[in-house]
Amino acid sequence: MPSYTPPTEDHLFILHEVLKVQENQEIEGYTDLTPDLTGPVLQEAGKLGAEVLAPLNIVGDGGCTLENGVVRTPEGFKQAFDMLRDGGWTSLACDPDFGGQGLPGILHAAAGEYHSSANMAFMMFSGLTLGAYRTIHAYGTEEQKATYLEKMATCQWTGTMNLTEPHCGTDLGMLRTKAVPQGDGSYKLSGQKIFISSGEHDMAENIVHLVLARTPNAPAGVKGISLFIVPKFLPKEDGAPGARNALSCGKLEEKMGIHGNPTCVMNYDEATGWLLGEENRGLPAMFTMMNHARLDVAGQGLFQAAAAYQVAASYAKDRLQGRAVTGAVAPEKAADPLIVHPDVRRLLLDQKSFVEGARAALLIAAELNDASHRHADPAKRKEADDMLSLLTPVLKGFCTDKGFDMTVQAQQVFGGHGYIREWGMEQFVRDARIAMIYEGANGVQALDLVGRKLAANGGKTLMGFFEAIKGFIKAKAADEELAKDFLDPLKAASKDMQEAAMYFMAEGMKNPNNALSGSSDFMHLFGHVLMGWAWARMAVAARAGLASGEGNAEFYRNKLRTGRYYMSRMLPETGLRLARIRTGAAPVMDLPAEAF
Amino acid sequence: MPSYTPPTEDHLFILHEVLKVQENQEIEGYTDLTPDLTGPVLQEAGKLGAEVLAPLNIVGDGGCTLENGVVRTPEGFKQAFDMLRDGGWTSLACDPDFGGQGLPGILHAAAGEYHSSANMAFMMFSGLTLGAYRTIHAYGTEEQKATYLEKMATCQWTGTMNLTEPHCGTDLGMLRTKAVPQGDGSYKLSGQKIFISSGEHDMAENIVHLVLARTPNAPAGVKGISLFIVPKFLPKEDGAPGARNALSCGKLEEKMGIHGNPTCVMNYDEATGWLLGEENRGLPAMFTMMNHARLDVAGQGLFQAAAAYQVAASYAKDRLQGRAVTGAVAPEKAADPLIVHPDVRRLLLDQKSFVEGARAALLIAAELNDASHRHADPAKRKEADDMLSLLTPVLKGFCTDKGFDMTVQAQQVFGGHGYIREWGMEQFVRDARIAMIYEGANGVQALDLVGRKLAANGGKTLMGFFEAIKGFIKAKAADEELAKDFLDPLKAASKDMQEAAMYFMAEGMKNPNNALSGSSDFMHLFGHVLMGWAWARMAVAARAGLASGEGNAEFYRNKLRTGRYYMSRMLPETGLRLARIRTGAAPVMDLPAEAF
Repeated sequence: MPSYTPPTEDHLFILHEVLKVQENQEIEGYTDLTPDLTGPVLQEAGKLGAEVLAPLNIVGDGGCTLENGVVRTPEGFKQAFDMLRDGGWTSLACDPDFGGQGLPGILHAAAGEYHSSANMAFMMFSGLTLGAYRTIHAYGTEEQKATYLEKMATCQWTGTMNLTEPHCGTDLGMLRTKAVPQGDGSYKLSGQKIFISSGEHDMAENIVHLVLARTPNAPAGVKGISLFIVPKFLPKEDGAPGARNALSCGKLEEKMGIHGNPTCVMNYDEATGWLLGEENRGLPAMFTMMNHARLDVAGQGLFQAAAAYQVAASYAKDRLQGRAVTGAVAPEKAADPLIVHPDVRRLLLDQKSFVEGARAALLIAAELNDASHRHADPAKRKEADDMLSLLTPVLKGFCTDKGFDMTVQAQQVFGGHGYIREWGMEQFVRDARIAMIYEGANGVQALDLVGRKLAANGGKTLMGFFEAIKGFIKAKAADEELAKDFLDPLKAASKDMQEAAMYFMAEGMKNPNNALSGSSDFMHLFGHVLMGWAWARMAVAARAGLASGEGNAEFYRNKLRTGRYYMSRMLPETGLRLARIRTGAAPVMDLPAEAF
Repeated sequence: MPSYTPPTEDHLFILHEVLKVQENQEIEGYTDLTPDLTGPVLQEAGKLGAEVLAPLNIVGDGGCTLENGVVRTPEGFKQAFDMLRDGGWTSLACDPDFGGQGLPGILHAAAGEYHSSANMAFMMFSGLTLGAYRTIHAYGTEEQKATYLEKMATCQWTGTMNLTEPHCGTDLGMLRTKAVPQGDGSYKLSGQKIFISSGEHDMAENIVHLVLARTPNAPAGVKGISLFIVPKFLPKEDGAPGARNALSCGKLEEKMGIHGNPTCVMNYDEATGWLLGEENRGLPAMFTMMNHARLDVAGQGLFQAAAAYQVAASYAKDRLQGRAVTGAVAPEKAADPLIVHPDVRRLLLDQKSFVEGARAALLIAAELNDASHRHADPAKRKEADDMLSLLTPVLKGFCTDKGFDMTVQAQQVFGGHGYIREWGMEQFVRDARIAMIYEGANGVQALDLVGRKLAANGGKTLMGFFEAIKGFIKAKAADEELAKDFLDPLKAASKDMQEAAMYFMAEGMKNPNNALSGSSDFMHLFGHVLMGWAWARMAVAARAGLASGEGNAEFYRNKLRTGRYYMSRMLPETGLRLARIRTGAAPVMDLPAEAF
C-alpha cells in the first residue's frame, strides 16, 4: 500500500518565499499568515492526510454499496469524516457569520492538497459540500443561509450538484427535470439526474441537493433553467432534519475509479424544493459553484500526480534493477537502484517538475481568489476576479490532462508491478482519469477559454497577463544566470502564446473554426506559460534564499535543478502547440463526418 | 456494449495498393496474395472478430477464477477458442512441416488485428503460444519439434514464457530459479515465476511453459541462464499428455485490465523440464520469442486504439450535444451531433491518423519479417532482419505509448459516459495500458534502441533507413502537391532525426547519459518519422488510385485528408523531441537521488 508524506516544506516555500503572503497587507487576513500559523496548520493537516486518509484510499477503492435505497460508504470512511469535520478542516475558509473560521482560502488550498492527495474519492464529499455552500452563500435568502450554511460548513450536512441528465451533459439547455410551484413558495421537482457524486450516503444526517430544473412555461434552452435547493430531509422549524423528501438513489454507477465516492442516479418524484436565486437564472448561479469546482478539480489532477510521484520516487530509490551505464553505483548490491537510469529519472522529473510548478500555479490562483473577495481595493478585486476567470479553464484542463499523464508515468516506473492492484499505482491512474472529464470535459474548458475568455473585457485581461509576465522579466533581467535558465525560456514561450492569440484574432474572424480547432492546443500552450512563470518566480525565490545564506541551501539548489528541467525540456512544447494552432481549421474540418 | 467493424478496406488498400504484395516476386508466397485470396480470408477473420470475439470482450473483463489450482476462463472463452483453432487462424503462418498453413506472416498480421482489436485478453492465449512455437522451432531438437510444434500451431496445446521473478523483471541476470540435471537428459526445476500470462487455464489439454532457470554452477548474471521446456503434463510416448508435472498456479494477480487472461504466479517444485537450445544460452533464445512478441505488443497498442476509435467515432456521430459554431447542422433536432465540434474532431483525428498510419507501419514491419525468412536473396534476408531489429523497439514503444493515449482520447469523446463500465470505453484504456509495460517496458525499448540498435552494424542499418527515405522522397519529388503536403514534412522530420542521431554520436561519446537521457524522445521521434513515411507512401497510393479513375475515389480523398492531418499536426512533434534530446544529460542527471 502506498504511503504518503505531506510536502509541507514545499508549501511553506511557496507561501512565504515566493508569494510572501505574510507581507501582503492588501488582502485581508494575509498578514496573519505567518509561518507560526501556517506551519502548525499544515503539519496538522498533513497528519490527518498521511495517518488517516491515505490508508483508507485503497479500502475506498473497494467501493460503496446500495441496498434498499441506502448507500453505504467504505469501512472507516465515517470515522474519518468525523475527524475531518471535528478538526475544522472543512470550515477553515468559510464565512465566520455562517459557521466558518474565516481564514484565507489559500491556506485551505494548501492544506487541502494533503487530504485530496491522500484520498481523492473521500474528499469529494466535503469538496462538493463547500461548492454548494458557496452557491447558497452567494444566492440564498437570509432564511436559506440560516437554515443551511452552518451545517454545511461543518459538513454536518453535505451537498451535491445535480446537472446532468441521461440525454444531456454539456448541453444543459436540453434538460427536462420539472419544478412546479406549489403556491407556498415551494416547488415539486420531478425528473432523473445522473452522475451525482455523493448523491446518497451514510456519513451525514442530511444531504442538500442543488438541482437544475425547469419551471412550467420557462423559455426553452439555457434561459429557462432555475436552481433549487432540494434536501433529503426537509428541515423542521428548529432546523433539525424532518420528513424524508421524495427523492432517492436509483442506482450506483459501475465506473473506472473514485470508487470510494458513490456516483448516483438520482430520481426526483415530486420532491419538495425551493428556488435558489432568481427563476430562470439557474445556470449563472450554478456556474458560481462550477467555477470554483473547476479549480478544485484542477487540484485533483495535480494532487493525484503528486501522490503517485512520491510512491514512484521511493520505489525507484529502493528497487534494485540493472546497472548505471557509467559504472555501478551500488557495487556491493546485486544491482543498482532504478533511479540511476536516465529514463527512469526522466519519468520522475517530468512528474516532479510538473507537480511543483502546478502546485505554485494553483496557489497563485488561490491568491487571486482571495484577492477577488478580500482585497482592500474594489478595482483590484474585480481585476483579480477577471484574471482568475481567464486562468480557471487553463488550470482545469492543463492540470488534469498532465496530472493524469503523470500518474501513468508514475505507474510506469513500477514496470509490471504498476499494473497490479496491491501496489496502488493503477488506482491513481483510474482515479485521476475522471478529473479530465467532470466539471466540464477538458475540450469544453478549451472552448470556454478560446471562445469566451480570451476576448472577455475586450481582451484586457489577456493583455494584463502578458504585461505581467513582461514586467516580471524586465524587473529581474539583471540576473544573468536567472535570465539564461528561466527568463529567456519564459519569454520565448510567452511569445509563442502571443502569436497564437494573434493568429486567433486574425483568422478566427474569418472562420471561428480556425480558432476552435486549436483550442486545446492553446489551453496547453497557456498552461505551459503559466507553469514557466510559476517556475521563474520560484527560481527568483530560491536564488534569494541561497544568497541569504539562510534556510536549506540544498532545497533551493534542488528547486533550481528541477526548474531548469521544466524550462529546458517541458516548456518548449509551446512551439509545437503554436505550430498546430497555425494549421487552422482545414486539417480538422476537411474530413466529412461520414468518413470518421 | 461497443460493437466492432473490421477495417478490411483499409487492409486491402495497404496490402494491394501501398505494398503491392501480389506483385512482389522476391518474397516467397507473396504473388499468391492476390485480392482473391486476401479478401475472403480477411472477411472471414473479421467475422470471427466482430461476431464472436468482440461480444466476449466485456464478459472477459469479469475475469478468471482460481480454485484448488484450477483456473477457469470467462464464460464463452472455451467455445471461442475452439472456433479460433478450428478456423485455422492460429496456424495460418506456421511451418507446413509442423502443422502450419505456410502463408506469409503479413496476412496473419492483418487478420490478427481483427481478433486482437475485438478481444485483446483472449488473443493473448494464442499469441504467446505462437511465440513459444517459434522458439521451439528455432532452437528445438527434432524430437522436441515433433513432440510440440504441431499441437502448438493449432493451439491444442498452448504456451507461455516464464521470465520474471519477484525480485527481477528487466534485470534477468538476477534470476534464481534452479534446474538440476537428472542424468537422463531431463532437469528438475524449482522456483517461482510471476506475471505469467495464460500460465494456467482450462482451454487446452496441455500447457507448454518455456522457463528461464540456472543450472548448478552456471556463471553468475545473464550468461548463466538456460531455457527449458516444462509442460504441464509430461508427453507420453504416443505424444498424448501424460503425468501431471510438479508445477502449479499459486495465485492470480489482481490487476488493472486484461482480466480475460489469467496472470499467474507459477510455482515450480522440482518440475520436470528439458533444455531448449544450449545450456547458458537461454537469453538469446528467449529473445527470439521476445522480439516477435514485441511486434505483437506493438499491435496490441494499435489494435485497442483502433477498436476504441471506432466506438468513439460512432458515438460522436450519434450523440446530440451543442450546436456547431458556424450554424446548426441538424436544426430539426434538439442539438447537433458531437462531430460538428472542432475539438471532438481533433480528438478523433488524432486517433484516426495514428491508427491508419501505424497500421501501415506494422504491415511494413510484417513485410520485413517475411523478407527476413522468405526472401530469395540471403543478403536481403539479412538486411530485412537488421532493419526489423532496428524498428522493433521503435514500434513497440511508439505504438503502445500512442495507442494507450488514443484509447484515453476515445474515452474522452464520451464525457462522463466514458468513465462508466457499461460503455466499454474505460476497458480499452485499462487493457491497452499493459502494452506499455510488458515484453520490456517502453523505457527499456528506448534503451535498446539508443544503447544497442543505433550503432548495430556500424550504424549501417540506420543509414539504410535514412537512405531509403531520401530515395523515396527523391523518386516522388516531381509531384508538387504530394511534395507540399507529404514529402516536405517527411524531409523535415527525417532531418530532425538525423540531427538527433548526430547529437548522440558526438555527445554520447563524451558521456553515455547524454544519449540515454534522450532515449525515449528519440524513440518517439523515430516513430513519427516512420509514421510520416508510412503516410507518405499511402498518399502516393491514394493519389495513384485517384488518377486511375478506378476504385473508391472518396476513400482515396479521405485517406489524403487524414494523412494531411498527421503530417501537419502530429509530425512536427519531431522538433520538440529533438530540442529535448539536445538538452543532454544535465537536466536529467543533476538532481541527486535523495532529492527525488
